[in-house]
Amino acid sequence: MARYSIGVDLGGTNSRAAAVSEQGAILESIAIATDLAAGRDRVIDDIVSNIATLRDQMRNADLAGVGIGVPGFIRMKEGMIVGSHNMPGFDNFPVRDEIARRLGSPVILENDANAAALGEKWMGAGKHVDDLVLLTLGTGIGGGIISGGKVLHGFVGMAGELGHITVVPNGNPCGCGNTGCVEKHASATAIESMANLLALGENVSAKQVYELARQGERRAIRIFEAMGLALGTALATLINVFNFPLYLLSGGVLPAWEFFAPTMMAEIERRSFTFRNTETKIAPAELGNAAGLYGAAYLPFCHS
Amino acid sequence: MARYSIGVDLGGTNSRAAAVSEQGAILESIAIATDLAAGRDRVIDDIVSNIATLRDQMRNADLAGVGIGVPGFIRMKEGMIVGSHNMPGFDNFPVRDEIARRLGSPVILENDANAAALGEKWMGAGKHVDDLVLLTLGTGIGGGIISGGKVLHGFVGMAGELGHITVVPNGNPCGCGNTGCVEKHASATAIESMANLLALGENVSAKQVYELARQGERRAIRIFEAMGLALGTALATLINVFNFPLYLLSGGVLPAWEFFAPTMMAEIERRSFTFRNTETKIAPAELGNAAGLYGAAYLPFCHS
Repeated sequence: MARYSIGVDLGGTNSRAAAVSEQGAILESIAIATDLAAGRDRVIDDIVSNIATLRDQMRNADLAGVGIGVPGFIRMKEGMIVGSHNMPGFDNFPVRDEIARRLGSPVILENDANAAALGEKWMGAGKHVDDLVLLTLGTGIGGGIISGGKVLHGFVGMAGELGHITVVPNGNPCGCGNTGCVEKHASATAIESMANLLALGENVSAKQVYELARQGERRAIRIFEAMGLALGTALATLINVFNFPLYLLSGGVLPAWEFFAPTMMAEIERRSFTFRNTETKIAPAELGNAAGLYGAAYLPFCHS
Repeated sequence: MARYSIGVDLGGTNSRAAAVSEQGAILESIAIATDLAAGRDRVIDDIVSNIATLRDQMRNADLAGVGIGVPGFIRMKEGMIVGSHNMPGFDNFPVRDEIARRLGSPVILENDANAAALGEKWMGAGKHVDDLVLLTLGTGIGGGIISGGKVLHGFVGMAGELGHITVVPNGNPCGCGNTGCVEKHASATAIESMANLLALGENVSAKQVYELARQGERRAIRIFEAMGLALGTALATLINVFNFPLYLLSGGVLPAWEFFAPTMMAEIERRSFTFRNTETKIAPAELGNAAGLYGAAYLPFCHS
């Protein structure tokens, strides 16, 4: 039987695992709620048990390896997560080696946004290029850089923290210590914060701001315009730095494309000589929530 | 006899060429004034004649190839310079192929800042790393990115336009169409423009502003502090994007390090979580003006 890998996408609320063929077909899959409240050991128990279940189901096939995408900065050499507020107890814990030990099989750990970028490169919107940048627009903004078909890691494994590009030098404060990070001006959380500033209602969600924009509410439309400006500034910088052919956007805010894209594209056009003089594409990602799972599953294939 | 290459560093005022060994020793060299006023054909004549002279001098040795560093955006595939205000007549002219045809030998064309970054990686401050970013602080700000020991080109060859990172969204206008490019807030020209704004004297040069700072002139010191803030913002973004171990600065403004480095480093520290959590080095480049020549000479060796 053919080779396969197991990919795990560990999210703050959901955790998914799948056995995936070398051609990118999902052969078996499991999705469970991530029980962060039950603590780190419980989360690891669940991961290990999901992987073991998939391995049993694939009994006669040849396992190429296990890839796991997780939120937070990753120290690649040590296989550890650092500075992830969403993953209490994981900070500086040797999570990769612990899972590998219990499975008796090597494991590759990767940042979730990097995994999503790799997934889009393998089976999604980036299938036909070797170089791309992905921005994931969710609660925060994550980033993944694929250069020459591989994840650009930097020397520790922290490359691609694109949500922390400064776009408003004296802008909103960020948990990272900076002010004006693009994720504080263009994420779902930023949209909600702007809705609050404009008194659009109490605890209005980004989704509700989108609904209001669709109903023609001017303040909601202005919020997405401001978001587009911030995103466009960050993208122009990335285009000037990388001159890659493709920049992808994904995440929960993507449906609002029609409202944020006009100012985003105008800002890119204005701020990037390179964009104006090349066939650079800015496009929605194609795999949605599954990108990270595909990318995690691809890790054992592109490392071997 | 051993293999050697010929490197050419074509500047707006000076042009240098050298025969360089595989170990990085300069075996023969020529420096002439670049006669841009005499037109493109004359400049190309001079380049070809310098290379031919060096080749004659190295008669019995084995020529690995010719590398040429030039100002401006490069289209790698076509071997052409685009959008270089300093090189009238070169725009969209097939300069690489024309020189190769006349020499009867293959030629590699490279952006001058990319070549300088490669030179620093080969023989300078980046000798011990495979990944680095170089910023050249001169009339403008150029950039070169070395990833995995090679120049990061992007799909056209325009990657590394780091002088056009936006650091002041509504800042000084730039010839590239943007406002607030780091090169409009931290280059020698930016220093002179700030000196003019502060009425430091008529047509004060960046060098004179430096002398005034040394004499304790508060306005001159403030200029370098502002320059450091702009540079620090750009570097923090680069560190967050790349997580490389080394970021080098070179160029005519480098002697003012003592005046711009404090605000630059404070800004990096504040704006980059990655910097605060890794052993990232920000350092002066080591090869000075010769970096571009070394890098150009290294091109045939790292391409073969």
